[in-house]
Amino acid sequence: MAVSQILTDNGASVTLWEFDSKICKQLVEERKQEDKLPGFKLPEKVGVTNLIDEALENKSLIVLAVPAQYLRQSLLKAVDRIPENSIVVNLAKGIENKTLKRMSEVITDVLKDKNVTVSTLSGPSHAEEVVRRMPTTVVIAGKNERKNEQLQELFSNSYFRAYKSSDIIGVELGGSLKNIIAIAAGIASGLGLGDNTLGALVTRGLAEITRLGIVLGAKSETFAGLSGVGDLITTCASRHSRNRYVGERIGKGEKLDEILSTMTMIAEGVETTRAGFDLSRMHEVEMPITKEVYKVLFENKPPGEAVWELMGRELKSEVWR
Amino acid sequence: MAVSQILTDNGASVTLWEFDSKICKQLVEERKQEDKLPGFKLPEKVGVTNLIDEALENKSLIVLAVPAQYLRQSLLKAVDRIPENSIVVNLAKGIENKTLKRMSEVITDVLKDKNVTVSTLSGPSHAEEVVRRMPTTVVIAGKNERKNEQLQELFSNSYFRAYKSSDIIGVELGGSLKNIIAIAAGIASGLGLGDNTLGALVTRGLAEITRLGIVLGAKSETFAGLSGVGDLITTCASRHSRNRYVGERIGKGEKLDEILSTMTMIAEGVETTRAGFDLSRMHEVEMPITKEVYKVLFENKPPGEAVWELMGRELKSEVWR
Repeated sequence: MAVSQILTDNGASVTLWEFDSKICKQLVEERKQEDKLPGFKLPEKVGVTNLIDEALENKSLIVLAVPAQYLRQSLLKAVDRIPENSIVVNLAKGIENKTLKRMSEVITDVLKDKNVTVSTLSGPSHAEEVVRRMPTTVVIAGKNERKNEQLQELFSNSYFRAYKSSDIIGVELGGSLKNIIAIAAGIASGLGLGDNTLGALVTRGLAEITRLGIVLGAKSETFAGLSGVGDLITTCASRHSRNRYVGERIGKGEKLDEILSTMTMIAEGVETTRAGFDLSRMHEVEMPITKEVYKVLFENKPPGEAVWELMGRELKSEVWR
Repeated sequence: MAVSQILTDNGASVTLWEFDSKICKQLVEERKQEDKLPGFKLPEKVGVTNLIDEALENKSLIVLAVPAQYLRQSLLKAVDRIPENSIVVNLAKGIENKTLKRMSEVITDVLKDKNVTVSTLSGPSHAEEVVRRMPTTVVIAGKNERKNEQLQELFSNSYFRAYKSSDIIGVELGGSLKNIIAIAAGIASGLGLGDNTLGALVTRGLAEITRLGIVLGAKSETFAGLSGVGDLITTCASRHSRNRYVGERIGKGEKLDEILSTMTMIAEGVETTRAGFDLSRMHEVEMPITKEVYKVLFENKPPGEAVWELMGRELKSEVWR
């Protein structure tokens, strides 16, 4: 919905596809979805449909706003209708757990017989603030430099500024793995710890996701950019982040199942913690924060114990990757 | 005061020197200073004196906790009494405005005839949280690897974890220049902008102080560490940061003079903005955020205009240093 506003503001003709017919009907009639984006009304020009054929007809740009674990099955429904030579832009920040693939890899899997360009848009961009037209910057990543520039022009306006990057691996990994660190930051906050601990977790967390990223083919400087440190800061500082919120309740002593059962929206970081943990073991990359978050979320380790264990690690030089 | 607690916890014998005789008397009698560290009582074993000779007698470690612009004149009072072969550790996060020198350079200037080791301790470490023994990490930087290790051992304990670095230039510049970005973050918040803008400012801010740092001889990875991104996050996220606070009031429309006249503690970032601006011009390094903060603080530029001008810059690749 937020992206439909950006593109409409920029003069594009946009159609939303909503798979749930009840929600689709509500969007058509009321032009809003209060539980997702309170106070927001869809721009008049935005079309809304439940029919995937209608949504994709004659479209040159397809924006996928689907949670990571559902991307493959959603896209499979659309695969026959995706127009040739279109650009497919992913917004999800996650890793497919079964395959440990990044979103652009999942898209390429499904669309392997299509001639399309695959990109990912990422960065510190809470939808709640985008629709209020607050200054926001993101990065658009893809392998095709010319298409990156085209997307940059399509998305950018006075309140939404898109940078471009050729490092789609780094952009996708940064946007996904940072949610693990956001959960850790939430846990520390839930335990009543302060900003010093937050600074430590974010810095050491950034170092460990960068280490993994480099092994997986990303450039280290990408993690110092908008999709890395920028998104991490926004997520950790924001009271609105769902991942931070899950961590905070864990830190206060609640169990993961209880917390997830009360949330209407998906906290991607929970699933990403599994993927990050698996990747770190598979590639033998030391990721102490990810490991402790994994143990707290899935093995009932007391969160206070995890934080003190992290602090007690052998004294090292700051740069040790 | 906070460092005296750390070192006392670690078994050291510590003497505080307080130049103001009235405050010294209060510290001796009440063991506290409510306007600086509310709720904190000095450990019983910590000595307090107004006499610099007494403070420095037989000391092997001298910790300087003096605001940047006063470091030279304070140290000049002590120069004759600094024991030979001692280690001098600086805590100030600033740049001397008249000379544009870093703190360790100022110390080396004053102590040029002494055989001492000069180090800087920096990182996300609000004193208010250190004295409550909340998990805190810092970096100790100096050119002498053996002394760095010695300091690391002296300072580290269960709640205070010191990493070491050989890049004292990067550590000092990161700790200082990040305050300019903290003011920018405060301005954005005062204007009512959100976390997306915060993420943008912090990321682009980190990029520009890294650019300057590299030109001045620092290593870029230091800015991704505790004294760079770590301290930046803590400062920008924290409601307690004085630099962020100054920015916030500026964003709400107050004038700098009014704000500073109501503060009992020094916001180092205001002076650092002058130094950062001067350094960027002298070395011809593009620092758009620093430039706009400078104009807002010292040339009465409306803060809203500055933010929108930053957003309107020509679209670029993310990595352009």
